[in-house]
Amino acid sequence: MHKSRLEAFSDGVIAIIITIMVLELKVPHGADRAALAPLVPVFLGYVLSFIYVGIYWNNHHHLFQAAQRVNGTILWANLHLLFWLSLIPFVTGWMGENHFAAVPTALYGVVLLMAAVAYYVLQCAIISEHGRDSTLAAALGTDWKGKLSPVLYLAAIGLAFVSEWLADAIYVFVAALWFIPDRRLARAIGTREEK
Amino acid sequence: MHKSRLEAFSDGVIAIIITIMVLELKVPHGADRAALAPLVPVFLGYVLSFIYVGIYWNNHHHLFQAAQRVNGTILWANLHLLFWLSLIPFVTGWMGENHFAAVPTALYGVVLLMAAVAYYVLQCAIISEHGRDSTLAAALGTDWKGKLSPVLYLAAIGLAFVSEWLADAIYVFVAALWFIPDRRLARAIGTREEK
Amino acid sequence: MHKSRLEAFSDGVIAIIITIMVLELKVPHGADRAALAPLVPVFLGYVLSFIYVGIYWNNHHHLFQAAQRVNGTILWANLHLLFWLSLIPFVTGWMGENHFAAVPTALYGVVLLMAAVAYYVLQCAIISEHGRDSTLAAALGTDWKGKLSPVLYLAAIGLAFVSEWLADAIYVFVAALWFIPDRRLARAIGTREEK
Amino acid sequence: MHKSRLEAFSDGVIAIIITIMVLELKVPHGADRAALAPLVPVFLGYVLSFIYVGIYWNNHHHLFQAAQRVNGTILWANLHLLFWLSLIPFVTGWMGENHFAAVPTALYGVVLLMAAVAYYVLQCAIISEHGRDSTLAAALGTDWKGKLSPVLYLAAIGLAFVSEWLADAIYVFVAALWFIPDRRLARAIGTREEK
Repeated sequence: MHKSRLEAFSDGVIAIIITIMVLELKVPHGADRAALAPLVPVFLGYVLSFIYVGIYWNNHHHLFQAAQRVNGTILWANLHLLFWLSLIPFVTGWMGENHFAAVPTALYGVVLLMAAVAYYVLQCAIISEHGRDSTLAAALGTDWKGKLSPVLYLAAIGLAFVSEWLADAIYVFVAALWFIPDRRLARAIGTREEK
Repeated sequence: MHKSRLEAFSDGVIAIIITIMVLELKVPHGADRAALAPLVPVFLGYVLSFIYVGIYWNNHHHLFQAAQRVNGTILWANLHLLFWLSLIPFVTGWMGENHFAAVPTALYGVVLLMAAVAYYVLQCAIISEHGRDSTLAAALGTDWKGKLSPVLYLAAIGLAFVSEWLADAIYVFVAALWFIPDRRLARAIGTREEK
Repeated sequence: MHKSRLEAFSDGVIAIIITIMVLELKVPHGADRAALAPLVPVFLGYVLSFIYVGIYWNNHHHLFQAAQRVNGTILWANLHLLFWLSLIPFVTGWMGENHFAAVPTALYGVVLLMAAVAYYVLQCAIISEHGRDSTLAAALGTDWKGKLSPVLYLAAIGLAFVSEWLADAIYVFVAALWFIPDRRLARAIGTREEK
Repeated sequence: MHKSRLEAFSDGVIAIIITIMVLELKVPHGADRAALAPLVPVFLGYVLSFIYVGIYWNNHHHLFQAAQRVNGTILWANLHLLFWLSLIPFVTGWMGENHFAAVPTALYGVVLLMAAVAYYVLQCAIISEHGRDSTLAAALGTDWKGKLSPVLYLAAIGLAFVSEWLADAIYVFVAALWFIPDRRLARAIGTREEK
């Protein structure tokens, strides 16, 4: 089974997810600067989610570039990931319109957590198809980011009820973790972990 | 005539259908857990329809992977299928917002039924282009699922006016039928059918 | 310059146009059959426009299958066509919500007319790139449908102010003209034209 | 790393951006010509933005046709460009609904400016990957349009508070600059610049 249509379909879904989020930025009625003020938190949420969806697209791109073939399990694991990603516009809008209140901030973390789990499952399905000793499995490496992120999301979900800003800071930190080029950071944190 | 553009266009339409359904999950005004309560049935409807559209994408993928060429009839049979799939977001939203009431539940079944018929017509058009004795026709096999599903949809449409929940249970059952990997289930039901 | 990205981009835009039209079918508040009644004209408009956009995708597909390369003029002629097609959801919604009233029906014709003109311009740009004596020019033939359609649209725009239903009948007729397989109809009308 | 998926994803996002702008053209309630009057500025804004997004798609197409491979930096520079383009529907809607008032007109310029900067950054990332002496760098040439446009956007942002129409005229002028075929105009302005 060829992977090209799976890639094309995922590109389509992710492209739509990343774009319909902007529809939450509702055109205000006034025409002055003050009319934009209530949109600031929605905009910030949009920026954060845009980066998250961008990270998922990037990782998806790399993962399937390494993959050579797909099977039925991979198709569904991929749809499962797209399902959780498709909820990001909803939780982003809810969080932004409520100025990063506790419950929406926690739910945002729940969706990120489920997307991370879905991505992990997808990765396992692909490794299982190609074999544990394949170059693909080697290329994915220890995947410390993929293992650390869910833990941080879980922490953020709990902390959202103590301090929303702490939870939001964790979301920004995880996004930065993935966004900043890998090697140096990996080495830095890797060294700290070895201690 | 090459099949690649038909696949790309179908991927685009199905990707949009599966994603705009989430727009029915309207961001609530409150910021507490209670604000999410009215969205629960809409969310459940979204999950069910996401799986149905995912099944159609999967089957479409397999069907055209087996196909070698397309003709004018196939192009229109494909558009006919996309037409009925494009109504799924509407009926999902209507069913979800009315807590799976009788008429919306029945209409949901009508759209599923028409999509199943359209898929069957598309399959016939492809077999007719490749010949009844082609490897494609052999690969599609007896297609017992494709023949059983419309019957179950018809039953659900009628039962919706007796008990909505029975109709919904049938929709969930048909989705499970397609979702669960083929071989074992096919053998299990196949044996029962032979009796 | 390769044509594949132009095809992919056009597929994307047309896929979105054909799908967002369904968003005009707003989920009604009631849960009984009566709640669907006001949606009937919107639904009929949706069916008509779905067929029109499908015809354009089909013709676009055939046109670029025959083309071998594209240039800057073709890129813009293609975007010009997509611009007019992108207005179809708007005029369809306006016509449907006003039960095919005179002005919306006429405006629907204006958009169809402009799309037909844009398609003609695109076709000329492609022929000009490939040469008047190319096999592509020969394949397109006399294009009697492409020449007849704008005349019929013009008639419909005028007639909309006399009788909306006459104008709508013309739109249905033109759609049928393109929808019904070519050869027989072409011969039938061709013979009549020769007289 | 292959460029095809980056192209496909960008096509998807740009196709959605160019199409969802039309959703700002809200179907009016009346059915006469007067009902369309308030939509005229929104429509004009739509035409202008459609051309701008079309220009970006055209340039993106040419840029990646010349490119041979991509890297992680290019992926993110591309997402950065798509981010600013994704804000065009929002600022177009705000500007159109407020009849090209000062603040929305200035904000429209800010988004165009940021998109131009993002495009420049993307171009630099691609040149850096291929080498300053590559044929790609030569093909891009002096890029006088890319250097002039941001200056004109900056001027328009400031002038919006003096005269909205002057700012809008500059946006139309820059669009025309990119839209009109290159050579003649380039020579004309190039000669003037040499003086």
